[in-house]
Amino acid sequence: MADTHSLELLVQALRCLPGVGVKSAQRMAFHLLQHDREGALRLSQALQHACSSVKHCTMCHTFTENDICPTCEDPRRDRGLLCVVETPADQAAMERTGAYKGLYFVLMGKLSPLDGVGPREIGLQKLFERIDATEQGERVVREVILATNFTAEGETTAHVIAQGLKTRGVNVTRLARGVPVGSELEYVDLGTIAHALVDRR
Amino acid sequence: MADTHSLELLVQALRCLPGVGVKSAQRMAFHLLQHDREGALRLSQALQHACSSVKHCTMCHTFTENDICPTCEDPRRDRGLLCVVETPADQAAMERTGAYKGLYFVLMGKLSPLDGVGPREIGLQKLFERIDATEQGERVVREVILATNFTAEGETTAHVIAQGLKTRGVNVTRLARGVPVGSELEYVDLGTIAHALVDRR
Repeated sequence: MADTHSLELLVQALRCLPGVGVKSAQRMAFHLLQHDREGALRLSQALQHACSSVKHCTMCHTFTENDICPTCEDPRRDRGLLCVVETPADQAAMERTGAYKGLYFVLMGKLSPLDGVGPREIGLQKLFERIDATEQGERVVREVILATNFTAEGETTAHVIAQGLKTRGVNVTRLARGVPVGSELEYVDLGTIAHALVDRR
Repeated sequence: MADTHSLELLVQALRCLPGVGVKSAQRMAFHLLQHDREGALRLSQALQHACSSVKHCTMCHTFTENDICPTCEDPRRDRGLLCVVETPADQAAMERTGAYKGLYFVLMGKLSPLDGVGPREIGLQKLFERIDATEQGERVVREVILATNFTAEGETTAHVIAQGLKTRGVNVTRLARGVPVGSELEYVDLGTIAHALVDRR
């Protein structure tokens, strides 16, 4: 396909998508041009529109088209609870449970020194400022729920945040580790069972 | 991420890419908006540009920005040889070998009745017309090389084309089936060895 300049540019541009290499990009370009030009144009417009209109909520850092996202603006939410998650997708998962009625802080990433992602990149300073905010002399946030992922990097991120909050006198909790709903003990990994045993209630 | 309309539209639009489901689309949208807006805008422009400028070569059906692609226009190529391939990517693979100096006909697909792809969709009529073309009373194409893939659908396509050419008095060949270069017999599948044995020379 090397003869066609704009096709070559499209293949290169598609490689900016995560997990897409040369072969996949060629397959995508071929599919779009041969079978779905309408979809390609729709994607082009959606990209442009999203890039120009999506920014970060000044309160919680999640994606929004306004200054403050609808979740942060919702007056029915408990402002004393602050749930810290890694991404908007994690936030959406929390929301789907319907079990949480507090507010969020979305890190938009996780600590990963090898990738050059430090406390500054995930906005920890802003998180601490938000937690320190007071209203009529009293701290607004009563409890910080650390809901970063249970991966090595997520755990590190949670640990660093917990350390930073130690001296602040705010209640810090972490999502419970344990046996997933619907699973049989025989097939659950040992680390999970050990955690579930320690945290039994 | 459901609160943000243009983000939701972007996730939906990304699903037009082959092999991309909801989760991948969300991951892509998140990556682009958080880490690579420049790439997203470049992709948006590349899509628009490719859709407006890439069309099909009137001779061989491959993608090109002109009426006739550079390969078909090349006067050094042997017009008596016509290689039939499924996609521009297959054509590019043939070209990279440097072993072929004839022209191409790109089907832009393969026969697949279950997906609604019949002889008309892959332009068989046009292929036959091209093979029947004469110059000063003589047929231009001496030999048709069937280089569709060696999958069930590719073999079927080759078979159908070969049947259509049976009565035309043109030489029809198929790429040789045999043991791949650099492989050990022990690890080659039996069908391939059987073919290599039958076609030994």
